[in-house]
Amino acid sequence: MKQEKKITMAHGSGGRATSDLIREIFAREFTNPVLDAMEDAAVVPGSGKIAFTTDSFVVEPLEFPGGDIGRLSVCGTVNDLLMRGAVPKYLTCGFVLQEGLDLELLQRIVASLAATAREAGVAVVAGDTKVVEGNGGLIINTAGVGFVPENVCISAANCQVGDVILVSGHLGDHHAAILSRRMGIYNTIESDCAPLGEMVGALLEAGIRVHCLRDITRGGLGTVLKELAEASQVTMAIEEEFLPIDAQVRDFCGLMGLDPLYMGNEGKLVAFVAPEDADRACEILSGCVYGKHAAVIGTVTDEEPGSAYVNTAIGGKRVLDVLFGEGLPRIC
Amino acid sequence: MKQEKKITMAHGSGGRATSDLIREIFAREFTNPVLDAMEDAAVVPGSGKIAFTTDSFVVEPLEFPGGDIGRLSVCGTVNDLLMRGAVPKYLTCGFVLQEGLDLELLQRIVASLAATAREAGVAVVAGDTKVVEGNGGLIINTAGVGFVPENVCISAANCQVGDVILVSGHLGDHHAAILSRRMGIYNTIESDCAPLGEMVGALLEAGIRVHCLRDITRGGLGTVLKELAEASQVTMAIEEEFLPIDAQVRDFCGLMGLDPLYMGNEGKLVAFVAPEDADRACEILSGCVYGKHAAVIGTVTDEEPGSAYVNTAIGGKRVLDVLFGEGLPRIC
Repeated sequence: MKQEKKITMAHGSGGRATSDLIREIFAREFTNPVLDAMEDAAVVPGSGKIAFTTDSFVVEPLEFPGGDIGRLSVCGTVNDLLMRGAVPKYLTCGFVLQEGLDLELLQRIVASLAATAREAGVAVVAGDTKVVEGNGGLIINTAGVGFVPENVCISAANCQVGDVILVSGHLGDHHAAILSRRMGIYNTIESDCAPLGEMVGALLEAGIRVHCLRDITRGGLGTVLKELAEASQVTMAIEEEFLPIDAQVRDFCGLMGLDPLYMGNEGKLVAFVAPEDADRACEILSGCVYGKHAAVIGTVTDEEPGSAYVNTAIGGKRVLDVLFGEGLPRIC
Repeated sequence: MKQEKKITMAHGSGGRATSDLIREIFAREFTNPVLDAMEDAAVVPGSGKIAFTTDSFVVEPLEFPGGDIGRLSVCGTVNDLLMRGAVPKYLTCGFVLQEGLDLELLQRIVASLAATAREAGVAVVAGDTKVVEGNGGLIINTAGVGFVPENVCISAANCQVGDVILVSGHLGDHHAAILSRRMGIYNTIESDCAPLGEMVGALLEAGIRVHCLRDITRGGLGTVLKELAEASQVTMAIEEEFLPIDAQVRDFCGLMGLDPLYMGNEGKLVAFVAPEDADRACEILSGCVYGKHAAVIGTVTDEEPGSAYVNTAIGGKRVLDVLFGEGLPRIC
């Protein structure tokens, strides 16, 4: 390892080169008693109800303003667990390395992944490494297990008529940051890539009646609202003027002809809460590190089950469908 | 989807093309109430002690004699759970599709994955799909959760001096099948790719004192024995003449200059059991669908902690180290 600076096919052999790589790059960063045992599977304490999910990360570039594929790989999976009201506990990481991948870059990404896991309060308890031909790229898959408290029932099918719709902050930041970076456009837009454990924990601890939570990723808020409207058979009605959007992102979108409603975040959620709890929920979100720009953006109605629309700033009404076509590929 | 026959970048957008793909290819095959809810994470019943693991699959070709990447993706992860004495319960699947991937091929692979999951008794409860540039390839990551019975303690560090070492069948079949197929060599060698739940369940139910189990994959039996010798601080002593190897695989290895001790399987395990239970364990393994050629191959001694060796057929003694160098890449 000392002389080599790049990943070679030998690192995927399952023999000495693989175990050296695992020891020197991965085990060092993720060290914990369960992982260090290097068993075929981690055996860990369980819970009566668990949440289980997975996500693969193929973002390009691997490092971007505000984050990198390592941080993203933790946030994506941890946030999916949180969206079911679960307390994230364990992660597995599958690394697929392309031949030629720079070892220092890999080391930075692994360190970032480990730091984000610590921030999110999860332990990486099992992993896997494979090597494929290519040009120095990297794909990471994470799977996560969380414990679900007995009384929690948060689900996509649980949005209720009368619920108030909140978002936890600025829309489209991650998407705009990736796109800016790829196009070589100079601005200071950063990805919002972050774990949302603090805000979900705070909402539940305060006894807010949360009916549904979803993180806003690929497809954007528009796609999320349409999908949830269908799952819960309700109507989502939001107000364009209430949507929190960073000024720089808004300008960037205007310039590029992009719609913030269909741009992905990686550290924002939309929450559906009982109307009496809405103001308190907004206060709680605003008090969180990653929730400064939280806002109430609309309500759930029974006008036309399965539909979503936005009342535009100039007084129109625009129906929201799921994103159609390409969007921005390899955003996460 | 009807007109298109190939994966395009739009299938990775997170919008309509993605959800059509998920519905038409994945959801149909994996259908179960938990997955069908299409939530951010699956919420499922848990257990006091759980096993958790992951594996990524990058095998080429995607279909090979005796299996395909779909079947492999279930077997690899389920077998890792079984090696801790866990009962496999849930799987997640992360698909990374390369642009240009043939949709009919994908459909066959997904169907095979689903059929193998049914065979192994696990439910696919969450999934993810991404699309990257490329030449029609496919990478699958699976993560698995199993329940660990309270009294089970099977671990790489638990091999004991005096234990008898058994393997569950022919060595090297998967490796030889993949290599034959890649080189265009005509033979009838098939991958042994299989879930090992029947044999692990049968051993534990019969009360066999199983101290350690490991599936023989990348790196082969030689690498496994050396790693376990280090983890348990014992010596592994095996007899070359006892190693079960299929005649055709043996001929193939001779021809190619390959060593079956360093060739991977995908449906074989090595078991370390108390000496009094060894004969019964061998009988039980032999009675299982995937264990017909099970054999006792050696014993655990205290000669030199951390080492492994094989007594050769011609009376020599050969020290076993882990595989060094490339091996055969993209074997699983």
